[in-house]
Amino acid sequence: MFFHVQKLINEIVADEPDPAAANILQEGLGGQFGEMRTMMQYLFQSFNFRGKAKPFLDLIQGIGTEEISHVELIATTITHLLDGSPRYQGNGSPGEGGSTPLSMAPNAPNVHHFLVAAQGAMPVDAAGNPWSGSYVYNSGNLVLDLLYNLMLESTGRLQKCRLYEMTSNKTARATISYLIVRDEAHERAYGKALEALGVNWGKTLPIPKIDNLKYPEVRELVEKGANTKQHHFRLDGSLMSAIFRGESPTHDGSTLTTVDEPPEGFPIPFLPERPEEFAPGLTPELMALAQQLEQMSRV
Amino acid sequence: MFFHVQKLINEIVADEPDPAAANILQEGLGGQFGEMRTMMQYLFQSFNFRGKAKPFLDLIQGIGTEEISHVELIATTITHLLDGSPRYQGNGSPGEGGSTPLSMAPNAPNVHHFLVAAQGAMPVDAAGNPWSGSYVYNSGNLVLDLLYNLMLESTGRLQKCRLYEMTSNKTARATISYLIVRDEAHERAYGKALEALGVNWGKTLPIPKIDNLKYPEVRELVEKGANTKQHHFRLDGSLMSAIFRGESPTHDGSTLTTVDEPPEGFPIPFLPERPEEFAPGLTPELMALAQQLEQMSRV
Amino acid sequence: MFFHVQKLINEIVADEPDPAAANILQEGLGGQFGEMRTMMQYLFQSFNFRGKAKPFLDLIQGIGTEEISHVELIATTITHLLDGSPRYQGNGSPGEGGSTPLSMAPNAPNVHHFLVAAQGAMPVDAAGNPWSGSYVYNSGNLVLDLLYNLMLESTGRLQKCRLYEMTSNKTARATISYLIVRDEAHERAYGKALEALGVNWGKTLPIPKIDNLKYPEVRELVEKGANTKQHHFRLDGSLMSAIFRGESPTHDGSTLTTVDEPPEGFPIPFLPERPEEFAPGLTPELMALAQQLEQMSRV
Amino acid sequence: MFFHVQKLINEIVADEPDPAAANILQEGLGGQFGEMRTMMQYLFQSFNFRGKAKPFLDLIQGIGTEEISHVELIATTITHLLDGSPRYQGNGSPGEGGSTPLSMAPNAPNVHHFLVAAQGAMPVDAAGNPWSGSYVYNSGNLVLDLLYNLMLESTGRLQKCRLYEMTSNKTARATISYLIVRDEAHERAYGKALEALGVNWGKTLPIPKIDNLKYPEVRELVEKGANTKQHHFRLDGSLMSAIFRGESPTHDGSTLTTVDEPPEGFPIPFLPERPEEFAPGLTPELMALAQQLEQMSRV
Amino acid sequence: MFFHVQKLINEIVADEPDPAAANILQEGLGGQFGEMRTMMQYLFQSFNFRGKAKPFLDLIQGIGTEEISHVELIATTITHLLDGSPRYQGNGSPGEGGSTPLSMAPNAPNVHHFLVAAQGAMPVDAAGNPWSGSYVYNSGNLVLDLLYNLMLESTGRLQKCRLYEMTSNKTARATISYLIVRDEAHERAYGKALEALGVNWGKTLPIPKIDNLKYPEVRELVEKGANTKQHHFRLDGSLMSAIFRGESPTHDGSTLTTVDEPPEGFPIPFLPERPEEFAPGLTPELMALAQQLEQMSRV
Amino acid sequence: MFFHVQKLINEIVADEPDPAAANILQEGLGGQFGEMRTMMQYLFQSFNFRGKAKPFLDLIQGIGTEEISHVELIATTITHLLDGSPRYQGNGSPGEGGSTPLSMAPNAPNVHHFLVAAQGAMPVDAAGNPWSGSYVYNSGNLVLDLLYNLMLESTGRLQKCRLYEMTSNKTARATISYLIVRDEAHERAYGKALEALGVNWGKTLPIPKIDNLKYPEVRELVEKGANTKQHHFRLDGSLMSAIFRGESPTHDGSTLTTVDEPPEGFPIPFLPERPEEFAPGLTPELMALAQQLEQMSRV
Repeated sequence: MFFHVQKLINEIVADEPDPAAANILQEGLGGQFGEMRTMMQYLFQSFNFRGKAKPFLDLIQGIGTEEISHVELIATTITHLLDGSPRYQGNGSPGEGGSTPLSMAPNAPNVHHFLVAAQGAMPVDAAGNPWSGSYVYNSGNLVLDLLYNLMLESTGRLQKCRLYEMTSNKTARATISYLIVRDEAHERAYGKALEALGVNWGKTLPIPKIDNLKYPEVRELVEKGANTKQHHFRLDGSLMSAIFRGESPTHDGSTLTTVDEPPEGFPIPFLPERPEEFAPGLTPELMALAQQLEQMSRV
Repeated sequence: MFFHVQKLINEIVADEPDPAAANILQEGLGGQFGEMRTMMQYLFQSFNFRGKAKPFLDLIQGIGTEEISHVELIATTITHLLDGSPRYQGNGSPGEGGSTPLSMAPNAPNVHHFLVAAQGAMPVDAAGNPWSGSYVYNSGNLVLDLLYNLMLESTGRLQKCRLYEMTSNKTARATISYLIVRDEAHERAYGKALEALGVNWGKTLPIPKIDNLKYPEVRELVEKGANTKQHHFRLDGSLMSAIFRGESPTHDGSTLTTVDEPPEGFPIPFLPERPEEFAPGLTPELMALAQQLEQMSRV
Repeated sequence: MFFHVQKLINEIVADEPDPAAANILQEGLGGQFGEMRTMMQYLFQSFNFRGKAKPFLDLIQGIGTEEISHVELIATTITHLLDGSPRYQGNGSPGEGGSTPLSMAPNAPNVHHFLVAAQGAMPVDAAGNPWSGSYVYNSGNLVLDLLYNLMLESTGRLQKCRLYEMTSNKTARATISYLIVRDEAHERAYGKALEALGVNWGKTLPIPKIDNLKYPEVRELVEKGANTKQHHFRLDGSLMSAIFRGESPTHDGSTLTTVDEPPEGFPIPFLPERPEEFAPGLTPELMALAQQLEQMSRV
Repeated sequence: MFFHVQKLINEIVADEPDPAAANILQEGLGGQFGEMRTMMQYLFQSFNFRGKAKPFLDLIQGIGTEEISHVELIATTITHLLDGSPRYQGNGSPGEGGSTPLSMAPNAPNVHHFLVAAQGAMPVDAAGNPWSGSYVYNSGNLVLDLLYNLMLESTGRLQKCRLYEMTSNKTARATISYLIVRDEAHERAYGKALEALGVNWGKTLPIPKIDNLKYPEVRELVEKGANTKQHHFRLDGSLMSAIFRGESPTHDGSTLTTVDEPPEGFPIPFLPERPEEFAPGLTPELMALAQQLEQMSRV
Repeated sequence: MFFHVQKLINEIVADEPDPAAANILQEGLGGQFGEMRTMMQYLFQSFNFRGKAKPFLDLIQGIGTEEISHVELIATTITHLLDGSPRYQGNGSPGEGGSTPLSMAPNAPNVHHFLVAAQGAMPVDAAGNPWSGSYVYNSGNLVLDLLYNLMLESTGRLQKCRLYEMTSNKTARATISYLIVRDEAHERAYGKALEALGVNWGKTLPIPKIDNLKYPEVRELVEKGANTKQHHFRLDGSLMSAIFRGESPTHDGSTLTTVDEPPEGFPIPFLPERPEEFAPGLTPELMALAQQLEQMSRV
Repeated sequence: MFFHVQKLINEIVADEPDPAAANILQEGLGGQFGEMRTMMQYLFQSFNFRGKAKPFLDLIQGIGTEEISHVELIATTITHLLDGSPRYQGNGSPGEGGSTPLSMAPNAPNVHHFLVAAQGAMPVDAAGNPWSGSYVYNSGNLVLDLLYNLMLESTGRLQKCRLYEMTSNKTARATISYLIVRDEAHERAYGKALEALGVNWGKTLPIPKIDNLKYPEVRELVEKGANTKQHHFRLDGSLMSAIFRGESPTHDGSTLTTVDEPPEGFPIPFLPERPEEFAPGLTPELMALAQQLEQMSRV
């Protein structure tokens, strides 16, 4: 069973709207190596988990639960990057006398963001391909599933490093940097799990081998230890710490720590009405009905 | 942020393995109107929610969170229906001298269950189509999103009623019946939300109009009020109850109640090793390493 | 602009329900070389037609219009083959006390016919793949489009000949035979159009080279000249006859004739309610409302 | 059976070529909520229609027939928006000495318009995804199908309103405005059909709630009553008027009227040769053969 | 540049036709972890290879070239398993008087084998999904690409072991066993390549950990050293042997050897005409023309 | 069996990087009528070839083998067009202090070229759609397969002529021109094969009818006879020449010649490291290990 707290796992940093940045971030949400995929892959591996090696189940499922919050974080980031693009911000009169408040949309990287999703995130990648269930890998063989997961996190981190180099928008970079660091933590987790079964990674991890000091936002998170800690996101305890502990498989002197307490979380910024999108599109009359309902419930 | 408890939202009732029942249940998991779709649709609608009508957000997101647990329930049901199919149950020696313990698989409704997923659930529908992000509907217009959600829950319930009539396997029927009842509760939720904006449904809800007394497992759940109650699945409170309360939009004399406390949950049954699938496939040597790790963590 | 007459272009011959026959006929409806494809391909070629060679436009568009009626015919055939499968025919009590009137469905070639489409036709092929817009070929080059269309009709006819050999169901065979003959007529049409531009087909047409006398239903239609005549399906006249006339490009002594008058058509058989599918699923109360409406309109 | 008249259901208004406008209009043609989808959905619902409520069949099928003409209209609009893009218009010498008459194409929103379709419409959406048969919804349950159809028309109209705000091209806007008005008429039709079964829509229809006076082209059509009238497009009469009559379900004082006579239609503009696309690509020699054929047919 | 010899890389062993075995083998041909995928993935990685580590290029490209021959082998195996299915073998009169020589096809695992492909192999998987370019993984990062390739070969071998347990058909098993052994050789190749960069695999390779002695056909090949040798398939030499040499990364005492000489190959069995499929469908008249051509060329 | 020589079938001509040209060339690689499709279609037709008309088999398979080298050529061309795009060339410090060396990527025609493929070619078309196995046509009927192949080569050539008109980049044009000429040779091959069975093409071939003299690079190749010669790419001889000989089916006075000797080939240009892509991403430490290995192998 799953439960929700209406907070984000990382902060949304304010900056200008940026549809191009929003679009490339879609790869991290709905791409073949994005957060929807890690989430679904780890959840299916957990639901189908066989045998008695329970710490491995708890590790995979705990990371899988974290990934739902990553989906929430990156979707929210995309929505805020799309909301109120510079060229029509403040123009609240769609079609008034034939105006074109969405005139920039036909040349946006993905016009669906404006035409279909009302300036919101979509379950697609940066080239517009919808997320597919065929992405999910779950062979049932534990060594193989762990090996795939390690490769998956590494590819996710590789793509996010490339994303970092594509944009200087602060809203985008804050989320990208957070995910670079967390993907690295997950690389350590799966690398460690395989180490427990006899593999020695030498100096190959993490992949890619980047110098964290080069990216200011990443460095800040690393200094807080965000790449060596792992919450288990369980309300009923977890055996994850049997694996995620001790020397890191990166062999760089760092130590892994499983954290029991849930993260505190950050507030979710408000999204205003967009009349040019008819979203949410309530007339004053319908809005009055909606408010009436809230008031009645307080009685 | 999302959290997990390692329990199921409904019970897995024991019965014989049944790959055909497992396969039709895939529609309820990865089908166009299945639980992965409702989950993703409501979560995206929540992440992209605009404006101040917060009880509507809390309603959609609360149901969305419940749907993650439904995905967990139906995936677990499918896995247990697949596990150890009659024709090779107990045959633990794959390939020994050229034996064919999986000889029934080529004629199974979806050979991928045995060839790809090691007798596990997959993110596909009953015809083998992978789940697609193009299923997710999120127009940004509140009335339209609610109307779609009502239609979606009704279609989900319609298909589950048909599923009930296709199988007499008890494992399958227990989960099907639970979802029939919960889909009905969600129909009431979205019907009520639209009623709050001025629609009167007359005698059209719920869709389809079935006599719940005909299905014994459904009747039992209805008698416990499972079709008129709604948990909010939030650890930090919810305004959902501003909508989900009072007279039901079905106009049948029933009353809606929002429940604050989380459900208790049911244990997740153990899935044994399947040597014919090499799942999890640990040799005695690797298994010893895995166990050593668990012991070390207890020190 | 398009108009409709509520009649079928060929007769639905009565026989037993046969879900397997229904499923293979889906290839002729929603397959890569089926009627939805020919219809859409010819309509797009017409809408995008360039230049002054108008008889070619009228030929392509006229055949395209005929194909809409073929879609109607084959969809109706499939629905009647699915309707009331032997193993549950007459069992009108879905779920009564836990009955399983749809128990045969999980082993049907495509369970979606029962689970999704209420024993109705779907826009998919015989392997369950949904029809795709990527099938439509429209290069803009006239010779190339005609060459493709000839190949398309030949492949359609080839597959329908194979379908004929797969089933002895009379409902299926009547429609299959009709389409074999009409595909042959269309082969002649496109073969003739290319002949008008200088190609000589020798003895290669029609493809495949079958002996029409072997298939009794086909022979009957051929004897009526159904493979050498072509209606233009236009209410405002057509230049199609500038091409579809004179010696056939098959060089078998036959002559092509364009027919101005529309075909007479055949009645569409009635489809009863299917309570086990909740289709149409109107309660007596809702049915009364529906009937009231019809009566009021007569006033 | 279907018939054709070589006229358009609305006028193509002349303006400059505009590939970006053409591309966004593709959503209205081949998108998930575009005209190909409404057409196919209503036709399949008609072919599979069960039971005796014939006015509902005639309503759905009549609108479905109209949608074929909408596909024709919007495809023709797109083709004319693509034809002869400003940057190479008049450059009739493809490749002469290495010239690049299509040099603007690589940066067009969808290069396939120039590379594959010879400046013609394609069965794809505005993001380039091909139309899919999986879009078609046909549950067999009448209330549910009507509810979906209402939602579908509302979403179509919502997207077309957004399209209106994205472009000021007159060719595009004329077609967009016509479809906004007709989608509204169809919302009324399905809203009314559900009202006949007991639903009262209050003030929620039409969706979105826009002020028609704001869009000049829309206003003009509304003033002619184009949003409250419905042709039945049948050559043999229709019971559609049993539903589409009387007070509109929008509760705005308007009255619905079914029209028996077919619309008059508008001429289809001529599309010239495009040598840079080799379309239709007939050499003078082949053109002479084509003309010869037309002359011979006049004898 | 690529060259061809009309021989197979392994023998086709004769046995009865077996459409079910043919269908499951499709996973090895067109599945997500089948031979088309390995072939395309390694070729793309070679075409896009960056930097100076040439032995790695030669290793990946050499295996990629071998995979083309695997595609040839498995496609040929499937075709021979399909050719002349027992239930209509010898029935050479399609449709004669209405006969149904293909009557078993509607219940075959994939009716397309008979309806579309004339009893031939197709580029699809065992569930009928067409092969997709989205399968190809090529991150550009060498460690990551090698890690993925190791996982890919391991999954391929895992699935082939499961295939072995699903069928006892000798034609199928001969090819399956050969591919099990070659996938193992490729696991060693990529495992060794990563070992060269510092990874130590302990006792985890190969994956899955099976006892080769259990499968008679596999044992025979292993005894010939087929799982430790690697041809480079280059006509102009290769640096592959810089990696594929010395101690195996499986740490089982075996030694890797790169072989310069090409394999000898096996004859390709003849495929007869199938009149019920109209394949190749030449009339006596056309056959005479074809033969005339061959004779003329000898002059 | 297939073999490789590490050379290209045509020269890569140097010019500036050009991501837009790279993207349109993807149609020729992974598009519905591109080289991956011709390659796979001809190989499948060969593997499934039925009957005794062996010169036809050798013709189809020989061209199929050539197409693998075309895939290699066009993929290499794309990679070189992408490598080191002007706006970040020379910027070797990804992320240094937050720099954005890939800042141009979000507006590239396909951001996946930079985000996923490290400035490399991908198996997708110019609109980003992944290559699909559903493209492959293999009806088993020889006349029909030849007709399709002729249409396929003509469409490929048509699209390449359009590509020529879209770009003036020399790297792109050299490869495009080579493929225009070779597609023409293949048109002659399939046209001739059908002529051998009785078709006379008059003046319709090749399609499109262009004046080769207009394109300088094409003219140069034609003057060398590159459009009338055909290598067979077999190491063990071929009967292809029984068909590809004598008068061309274009009826323009040219003569067809089959060539036994393999082409000489051209060197493959080196692709440097791209630090901003972390490709190949070896640290100095890992690079030392890689080099050590090469040295050891020389001992």
